[in-house]
Amino acid sequence: MSSDLLGADQRAQAVVALGGGHGLHASLSALRQLVDDLTVDELTAVVTVADNGGSSGRLRGEFGVLPPGDLRMALAALCGDDEWGATWAKVLQHRFEGDGEMRGHVVGNLLIVGLWELLGDHVDALDWVGRLLGAKGRVLPMAMTPMDITAEVRGLVAGDPDALTSVRGQVEVATTDGVITEIALEPADPEVSPAVVDAIAGADWVVLGPGSWFSSVLPHLLVPRLREALVATDARLVVVLNLDEQAGETGGFGPADHLAVLAEHAPDLGIDVVLADRTSVGEDLGELEHTVAALGARLVVDDLARADGTPRHDPVKLATAYAKVFGVGS
Amino acid sequence: MSSDLLGADQRAQAVVALGGGHGLHASLSALRQLVDDLTVDELTAVVTVADNGGSSGRLRGEFGVLPPGDLRMALAALCGDDEWGATWAKVLQHRFEGDGEMRGHVVGNLLIVGLWELLGDHVDALDWVGRLLGAKGRVLPMAMTPMDITAEVRGLVAGDPDALTSVRGQVEVATTDGVITEIALEPADPEVSPAVVDAIAGADWVVLGPGSWFSSVLPHLLVPRLREALVATDARLVVVLNLDEQAGETGGFGPADHLAVLAEHAPDLGIDVVLADRTSVGEDLGELEHTVAALGARLVVDDLARADGTPRHDPVKLATAYAKVFGVGS
Repeated sequence: MSSDLLGADQRAQAVVALGGGHGLHASLSALRQLVDDLTVDELTAVVTVADNGGSSGRLRGEFGVLPPGDLRMALAALCGDDEWGATWAKVLQHRFEGDGEMRGHVVGNLLIVGLWELLGDHVDALDWVGRLLGAKGRVLPMAMTPMDITAEVRGLVAGDPDALTSVRGQVEVATTDGVITEIALEPADPEVSPAVVDAIAGADWVVLGPGSWFSSVLPHLLVPRLREALVATDARLVVVLNLDEQAGETGGFGPADHLAVLAEHAPDLGIDVVLADRTSVGEDLGELEHTVAALGARLVVDDLARADGTPRHDPVKLATAYAKVFGVGS
Repeated sequence: MSSDLLGADQRAQAVVALGGGHGLHASLSALRQLVDDLTVDELTAVVTVADNGGSSGRLRGEFGVLPPGDLRMALAALCGDDEWGATWAKVLQHRFEGDGEMRGHVVGNLLIVGLWELLGDHVDALDWVGRLLGAKGRVLPMAMTPMDITAEVRGLVAGDPDALTSVRGQVEVATTDGVITEIALEPADPEVSPAVVDAIAGADWVVLGPGSWFSSVLPHLLVPRLREALVATDARLVVVLNLDEQAGETGGFGPADHLAVLAEHAPDLGIDVVLADRTSVGEDLGELEHTVAALGARLVVDDLARADGTPRHDPVKLATAYAKVFGVGS
């Protein structure tokens, strides 16, 4: 795909990508290619800040800051193509090994927390890291406060399969053995950066997913000021389905189930396009078509998975699919 | 002072500054001004790597790397004048507080160790940090191996004032209650980067000091390959004396005593200029003149101290003095 594909009536698009973790990394790795192709001229990532595990959880606990890990990973996905951007991205992604006190900490997390302490402003600090990397877009936190995910989970009580148990924490929710029926956030109404609200208001397209459905994708819809911005914007919303169910939080979920819980958690949200991988959907296609139609959306089924058989999106295939969805592809 | 002072017969100078800690930071803060003035066109810092305390000591212990702190401080002293260089220098100098596992660690130390692990080359990694800061010179380690300082100390044995005790470690040497009579390094003959040897060979001037005399200044002279380079070079050597004795390692030392222990530790080293602060020398001037003359060197006494009365060099005054010594000042 080249910028030749941008016809006279096709201007470059402003895109906001919502998510967290590896799913958002894959989505941003695709979208950055559209920045290179001039298909996208404004790219903003809005990232979950509910992580409570690993290096991020330790830093959040020690300093009361936003968990930096998902933000760092999003920034790394957008790094410049040159040796400068690629090297700093690798440095920021570097995780200390060994068996000492630094074990498991990630260089970029420490740099981001240092910047937060020094500058006193989460958004400003992330912009500094973006400039360091020559990032092809802006990375913003979903909320200005560290969040906790809580879930109602069925099936954790022996002998009472219908009993609900409250599970708290992103790690705990992502790895529960039960079936998640509902999630919520604490605090319930966190501050949202005006930069996030403005980006959504000015976007042509908002991309939600792929990623850990309950712990990285749905949380955005539970932040009231973020959901209001998503409902109010003229931007069209693309939901990108995962390639597989995820042991723990979406065990046993088919593609239509993913959409169903999304609609349950944000019934007022209009979905324009649902993007799914052909092989992953397989024989669930009929049910998915039905669900997508019921939501008033358009289903786009394409070849999106990596050739190596891992249930991850291939950034090049995903970029081509995004371009088609945005109306600038072949 | 401006570059107008560079007459037709005065070309810009290549300068190598040896030391560590706050003393080297002051010296580099002065020398960077001569880079701005085009008086100096090549500036290289060669930094002690014997620290075993604080954040550097913890990282050295955990990862077996060079202690990064003095290297980081030297890089920060050379940062670019613009917002970019100044901000990243502040971030790199930022020390975590609180009472958690990160307490006392410095962001730049962690970044440097991450780069070392990633790139596998200490010198290359320091050059990357230099480029990040827009540094006005290059920062190199004194040796490619973490070093330990050992000292023979008199006066630590109750009832036997002449007994010698061996003290090991930069922190322990710098804070000993006794009188240091001799220091040594372990390992005794560490690898030295060819970049260090080349910089000294190509220098017009080598600046030694100011700084903690036994733990930051003299160690350079005890590294055989470094001392050989210093003896072999055509560069002229300036020794910058401290403004005060230092409780612990140089308690009771006058200016001439500092020179005497330097000459004892490196008798084959030719000293060209000794630079001292007028007020600090005070009534010791006669003795100092005698010692400097005996070494075959020239004594330059000037006003070098900060106006606030702290025993630290004022970078602007020190820059003016360096320019005079290098033969390009008024």
